[in-house]
Amino acid sequence: MRHDGRTAQQLRPVTMTPNFIIHPEGSVLIEVGNTKVICNATIETRVPHFIRGTGKGWITAEYSMLPRATTERTSRESSRGKVTGRTMEIQRLIGRALRAVTNLEALGEKTVWVDCDVIQADGGTRTASLTGAFVALALALDKLDQEERFETFPLTQYLAATSVGKVGENLVLDLDFVEDSSADVDMNVIMTSNGEFVELQGTGEEATFTKREMFDLIELAEGGIQQLINLQRDVLGEVAQSIGRQDETNE
Amino acid sequence: MRHDGRTAQQLRPVTMTPNFIIHPEGSVLIEVGNTKVICNATIETRVPHFIRGTGKGWITAEYSMLPRATTERTSRESSRGKVTGRTMEIQRLIGRALRAVTNLEALGEKTVWVDCDVIQADGGTRTASLTGAFVALALALDKLDQEERFETFPLTQYLAATSVGKVGENLVLDLDFVEDSSADVDMNVIMTSNGEFVELQGTGEEATFTKREMFDLIELAEGGIQQLINLQRDVLGEVAQSIGRQDETNE
Amino acid sequence: MRHDGRTAQQLRPVTMTPNFIIHPEGSVLIEVGNTKVICNATIETRVPHFIRGTGKGWITAEYSMLPRATTERTSRESSRGKVTGRTMEIQRLIGRALRAVTNLEALGEKTVWVDCDVIQADGGTRTASLTGAFVALALALDKLDQEERFETFPLTQYLAATSVGKVGENLVLDLDFVEDSSADVDMNVIMTSNGEFVELQGTGEEATFTKREMFDLIELAEGGIQQLINLQRDVLGEVAQSIGRQDETNE
Amino acid sequence: MRHDGRTAQQLRPVTMTPNFIIHPEGSVLIEVGNTKVICNATIETRVPHFIRGTGKGWITAEYSMLPRATTERTSRESSRGKVTGRTMEIQRLIGRALRAVTNLEALGEKTVWVDCDVIQADGGTRTASLTGAFVALALALDKLDQEERFETFPLTQYLAATSVGKVGENLVLDLDFVEDSSADVDMNVIMTSNGEFVELQGTGEEATFTKREMFDLIELAEGGIQQLINLQRDVLGEVAQSIGRQDETNE
Amino acid sequence: MRHDGRTAQQLRPVTMTPNFIIHPEGSVLIEVGNTKVICNATIETRVPHFIRGTGKGWITAEYSMLPRATTERTSRESSRGKVTGRTMEIQRLIGRALRAVTNLEALGEKTVWVDCDVIQADGGTRTASLTGAFVALALALDKLDQEERFETFPLTQYLAATSVGKVGENLVLDLDFVEDSSADVDMNVIMTSNGEFVELQGTGEEATFTKREMFDLIELAEGGIQQLINLQRDVLGEVAQSIGRQDETNE
Amino acid sequence: MRHDGRTAQQLRPVTMTPNFIIHPEGSVLIEVGNTKVICNATIETRVPHFIRGTGKGWITAEYSMLPRATTERTSRESSRGKVTGRTMEIQRLIGRALRAVTNLEALGEKTVWVDCDVIQADGGTRTASLTGAFVALALALDKLDQEERFETFPLTQYLAATSVGKVGENLVLDLDFVEDSSADVDMNVIMTSNGEFVELQGTGEEATFTKREMFDLIELAEGGIQQLINLQRDVLGEVAQSIGRQDETNE
Repeated sequence: MRHDGRTAQQLRPVTMTPNFIIHPEGSVLIEVGNTKVICNATIETRVPHFIRGTGKGWITAEYSMLPRATTERTSRESSRGKVTGRTMEIQRLIGRALRAVTNLEALGEKTVWVDCDVIQADGGTRTASLTGAFVALALALDKLDQEERFETFPLTQYLAATSVGKVGENLVLDLDFVEDSSADVDMNVIMTSNGEFVELQGTGEEATFTKREMFDLIELAEGGIQQLINLQRDVLGEVAQSIGRQDETNE
Repeated sequence: MRHDGRTAQQLRPVTMTPNFIIHPEGSVLIEVGNTKVICNATIETRVPHFIRGTGKGWITAEYSMLPRATTERTSRESSRGKVTGRTMEIQRLIGRALRAVTNLEALGEKTVWVDCDVIQADGGTRTASLTGAFVALALALDKLDQEERFETFPLTQYLAATSVGKVGENLVLDLDFVEDSSADVDMNVIMTSNGEFVELQGTGEEATFTKREMFDLIELAEGGIQQLINLQRDVLGEVAQSIGRQDETNE
Repeated sequence: MRHDGRTAQQLRPVTMTPNFIIHPEGSVLIEVGNTKVICNATIETRVPHFIRGTGKGWITAEYSMLPRATTERTSRESSRGKVTGRTMEIQRLIGRALRAVTNLEALGEKTVWVDCDVIQADGGTRTASLTGAFVALALALDKLDQEERFETFPLTQYLAATSVGKVGENLVLDLDFVEDSSADVDMNVIMTSNGEFVELQGTGEEATFTKREMFDLIELAEGGIQQLINLQRDVLGEVAQSIGRQDETNE
Repeated sequence: MRHDGRTAQQLRPVTMTPNFIIHPEGSVLIEVGNTKVICNATIETRVPHFIRGTGKGWITAEYSMLPRATTERTSRESSRGKVTGRTMEIQRLIGRALRAVTNLEALGEKTVWVDCDVIQADGGTRTASLTGAFVALALALDKLDQEERFETFPLTQYLAATSVGKVGENLVLDLDFVEDSSADVDMNVIMTSNGEFVELQGTGEEATFTKREMFDLIELAEGGIQQLINLQRDVLGEVAQSIGRQDETNE
Repeated sequence: MRHDGRTAQQLRPVTMTPNFIIHPEGSVLIEVGNTKVICNATIETRVPHFIRGTGKGWITAEYSMLPRATTERTSRESSRGKVTGRTMEIQRLIGRALRAVTNLEALGEKTVWVDCDVIQADGGTRTASLTGAFVALALALDKLDQEERFETFPLTQYLAATSVGKVGENLVLDLDFVEDSSADVDMNVIMTSNGEFVELQGTGEEATFTKREMFDLIELAEGGIQQLINLQRDVLGEVAQSIGRQDETNE
Repeated sequence: MRHDGRTAQQLRPVTMTPNFIIHPEGSVLIEVGNTKVICNATIETRVPHFIRGTGKGWITAEYSMLPRATTERTSRESSRGKVTGRTMEIQRLIGRALRAVTNLEALGEKTVWVDCDVIQADGGTRTASLTGAFVALALALDKLDQEERFETFPLTQYLAATSVGKVGENLVLDLDFVEDSSADVDMNVIMTSNGEFVELQGTGEEATFTKREMFDLIELAEGGIQQLINLQRDVLGEVAQSIGRQDETNE
């Protein structure tokens, strides 16, 4: 039994509120327990210079936390004049993972910006951001699909993420802040709806882990991600059809 | 009749949701029409160097917008590595105005940081931020008052702000984005519950204005601010007593 | 009687030395008491990207102080690597105000940069800068007019600024540093030669002000600005004719 | 057979030249094929503020590439005025991994800076840096041990890293630049001498990978890391005894 | 005969206006032909960390140009967010040279900041700045001497600088902008009143120079500097006695 | 006799290893005693904006030191976010000197970047960098000459640099770190193979120097530079012919 009454294999309550902000092409508020992230997707009709002229699109992500998303106030990156290494790591990770399930040729010469803004943090902000970012991206692409029908819908798979870790002697799913702070091993896992891996980052926090523990953690993550993808399907509703459409066409 | 059906003297619907974020000492979500701002107040037990040792406290504000708070995505100030002049103007204004209704000696050697983060923008973000910032500040000070009873509650007055402007030939209250974009004159007014002014900023946008227009705009603003302060009283409930307590003691 | 012997309605001695620096298209040294500002206007034959192709011109301002313009040495913004919020506020204000009396279509696709460099400060540097900036701008536009005759001279009105404030119980015009430091209310007023307002910024310095006080301050300012505009007319001499010409043509 | 004639399980030739630079407390030039990194360790007798007073030490790493370490010249981070996200990720990773095999209490209130400067790059610079960084750290701690005998030698295990990946249909060890550029899956693995994991980062490059592939890649990495640790033992010679000493004492 | 009618050995007209700005401890406006620099010296009663506790003082210089000091507008270093290499070179040079004629022990634990702000440039701004900086420094130290009598006046020698160069086939003294732009060789020379050298910087501008030319240039510079030091003596008047006093005491 | 056994006129042992790094068009490791610098030249087929369209090329240099090139660790310029004044001075000097012996018209619209990275420092890093930079430049231009035969080989002369100084009462050649730290006068001299000067920078370090000393120092430098140029000829081998070819064609 965990400090908040969950079993080792149990996610915190997850809700996703689509169209949370009115301006973006895709928007969702994702809540994973007390962690709350606004994910907004913006479509821009130009691409970064390094792929200009290739006919391919690009997806990029930015991540930030409100100063009082955290227990103690964190100073703003804009005030400090630079983005921390942690923020850079997270936004590079989110962009890379989203691109792994996107057919960039099908997208065409467009950039999708996905902004993940954590308004309240309680552990797992990067995996919640990723899970929400996928939904915002799907909503934005669906909107574009309605305006100018894609031949092939650019999303090839669902994508979701969760964290697993070793807390004391226990391997647990979806760590909250209290668990995360005392974990010896922390692993973030990103998977697709067909059960493949996009990214796996396991870290011993001044500790090491065995191959056995690694395998068990991965299994825990698989269970959690399956549930998250089911929730994404529910929220996306009809949009889910497009992702399906893509699957059939491509394979 | 205005483009959204309001009369010239009518505010947009205003709601304030206290305790919106769980971590800060004071938190409120203020919605003025489609403009939505999260205002969080943090109390820190130290002060900036320039008042260290004076026994006085300090109040400072930071303001930011999510990239897709706006119709077009705005690039992040943290990514650009510097804060724009507009942001600086707004946060200096909010800090200065809050200090005008705070008895800094009564506060003692503490700093209150008030963070205003616009999650959705539709005109009037700086005045909504200021009106919400006051509520967040009051909540935070009330929490502190409960823990370590102030002799004199530091807030001396209520404080709220609104904008007025000249749109075409009409003088109107509480401009939304559509009106703001086409206004010839724009005025931000900050007032206290006893009807005095804290700040007045009138600007001709590549235009000028007469003394008569200025007086009429100020009158419009007075009416709006009175309503906003009444809403603040309702939201603050018992906290309102403390501000009252202060009033009696001081005068 | 004020600390320097002036009456409440009295400006400090004002002089303007045109063509102070040899290189700029327009240059003036303005002295308001001990406050001394070099104002230089530069004409550039391109415009910022956001108005490119519109046929309109642009006016922008920069403001700075020498480190020892002040009693204590202020560190250089270039050494600190960023411009302060105060500087940004002032340069945005000056640019906006100058644009309010400029016919940007008549100017055509040109940018005028107005640099205000305070070499000695004794209160009122922003209003002195604005008053001098107008003269530098007029001189630069006149020079251009002589080279390539404007159909319509771009300046539509004179423009000058002063400060007024409440010092102790007195409302006074044109505060010097000593008065400014102890003022409860400080108001900067920018007006045109036809008596209209371009910008009005009144601020209670940890204080508030009544509507009555506000009206009286504005009246004080009107008197001072009228005198400043008369001085500008004298200094500009023949150039004044062009501004006149514009007036006739337009109205 | 790989493009350079290696088998799938084969490392590139690896050499480590200890004491490469004369000034640092520990220094090594590591060459992994054509990848060459100078690793220098510096011991400083103070610690970052967040552990001051705890009696513990700290290890931090910095990573950089000469502009022409790469085929095309890369502009300097110092000229651009900021460190890229990639650099930040790598130096955070190296610092974290070194701390995982260091007894920070045994180190005491000291900071070890490990600088990894890539002078020539041909794939695998981050894992070569990590493997070299461990040697530089061991040399520096050994030097300190000789001056002021540690009760417990702070290093608890050897530490080395390599990359594995999926290139075309093949899973291969120690990718060079040509392989890395065309790999679908790239995994960096950091392990200790007792066969445990410190960090595992697997990434699909616009691709995904199965659990089976992941397990096979990890096995490939284990073989490579064992060889690297043997090479470290040879280079460290007598220093190896200290790490042994520590092992015996602790367990 | 040079383009402005001077002979090869002739300086431009030089004037120095002491006490030009009212706030600094030492202030002078130096004009060398059309080059005009305000030099202000500030005394601060603390020293940089690297000499703290040594009983010695420090002298540091900052140099800047107004944007329209030049024919074309130069963008502000504060707006660009960094100081150019040219500026750094000049301010390092001025600080170093002033320290060469200052007895830092006699100064005691104080820092003198010398700010050189070029308000109008026409060649030779760095040497004019240095010559003026010495005067501002002497005035500031004299003021301090009057308040708290130095045992040994810290200035040991006069110090002045000029430029010489090869323009076409001619070697000339004190180049203005027109000459400087077309010079093949440019040399800045800094000397003391007893005829010794403090700094010598000769540069071929995409050209080289012979030993003979170098010697002749140095001789030209000696003549010019002697005249500049005579002018400094005149301007400093009684202060000149202190520098004399120092000379007698020390040698 | 000097502290390391050299005579006053003796250089430290100098070696140059051409083609040290595999990627650059020209690369050399220069070792002057314990000072070691990697010099890499990169050819880019575009030029800075200020010479675009003139048919001329450009040469620019960057200089950096590894953090532990020095006895004490120096913090990275990339981490500090800005380049120091010393670095700027050195890289400007190297670029300027290389351009003085390059026929930029013959080079055509190309930029050569020369990167000098000091991996170990023991005095004289800027002159060693310059001497190595010339070799890297010559190698890169030779490579280009082989691919697309220059009509006129762009290098007109050899170029090398050394330092001389006054240490105690002695004038010595090629100061190492120990001598440099205690020198009263320090002079860097850059000369060409035909015995002319490109740059001369003599500095009294809180000291002054006589004309006699200056002449003697220059003579010392001439001897050292002649030896360095002979070494460059040996290392460049056949490339030396091209520089010869150029000499004949031009004169």
